Amino acid sequence: MAEKSLQDLFLVTLKDLYHAERQILRKLPRISKGVHSQELAQAFQTHREETEGQIERLEQVFELIGKRPQGKMCEAMKAILEEGDEIMEEFADSEALDAGVLAAAQAVEHYEITRYGTLKAWAEELGLDEAVRLLDQTLQEEMKTDKILSKLAEEALNPQAAE
Amino acid sequence: MAEKSLQDLFLVTLKDLYHAERQILRKLPRISKGVHSQELAQAFQTHREETEGQIERLEQVFELIGKRPQGKMCEAMKAILEEGDEIMEEFADSEALDAGVLAAAQAVEHYEITRYGTLKAWAEELGLDEAVRLLDQTLQEEMKTDKILSKLAEEALNPQAAE
Repeated sequence: MAEKSLQDLFLVTLKDLYHAERQILRKLPRISKGVHSQELAQAFQTHREETEGQIERLEQVFELIGKRPQGKMCEAMKAILEEGDEIMEEFADSEALDAGVLAAAQAVEHYEITRYGTLKAWAEELGLDEAVRLLDQTLQEEMKTDKILSKLAEEALNPQAAE
Repeated sequence: MAEKSLQDLFLVTLKDLYHAERQILRKLPRISKGVHSQELAQAFQTHREETEGQIERLEQVFELIGKRPQGKMCEAMKAILEEGDEIMEEFADSEALDAGVLAAAQAVEHYEITRYGTLKAWAEELGLDEAVRLLDQTLQEEMKTDKILSKLAEEALNPQAAE
């Protein structure tokens, strides 16, 4: 059996992220419906549309390395999303609900930010220029989403939760 | 039963992070021993010492809000660490091992960065000035650790993994 290479590591991580993105896509509509703030629901709706594009980009990266798009159960994303579910249940009738759900969404974003950052760095190392461009495009979107959420938390949802 | 408040949300998240930090503390020695790069092992050793201080700061935050330090099973951190274990097993004999373990460590850091960022914002909202100072101190350390890891990946471990 050949020694495992950086190419193998790239593929394993790509499959993990592909599965993570599809979990997020499935979860977002329910989260949008569960929050009180129109603005937060809208942010989730916008992110859902972005996520569809991000999944397509991952499929293009699979294609670039000659592999069939295939997910590998991402337990980390599953657990992060479940922590969000718990907050939604536990704080369902609370003014603090939206602040908690937004924080859970930022945990999702940060997992994605670190994974896209890693995949982009490995793609650079492997000379996969087109993959670098695609992964960076999504990385920029995820960082922008995280900033939008931080702004919404600080300007509206945290003060409201503290009322 | 009183409606749940931002104080409750702060406490739930503080317990989650306290448990996460203690999971990391337990795991770091084994990870340090498992990697090939001396420099990466040293980075993990340094981070272990930092983590001890970070746990003490969380205990001070519990004290500031008049609560006993108590963890609440952080499933997200458990799953992130288990993904790291899988990479360690699967790539044990590979030149790409260190790059994979470093990436897993960055996923750990990013979870902490988002949680400390959230807790700091909530502490600001709740007027807990001393807690803000403590949480920010750790947040800065986590961001520094993430930067150190990125630099080590780009300058040494990724090129080595691609050889």
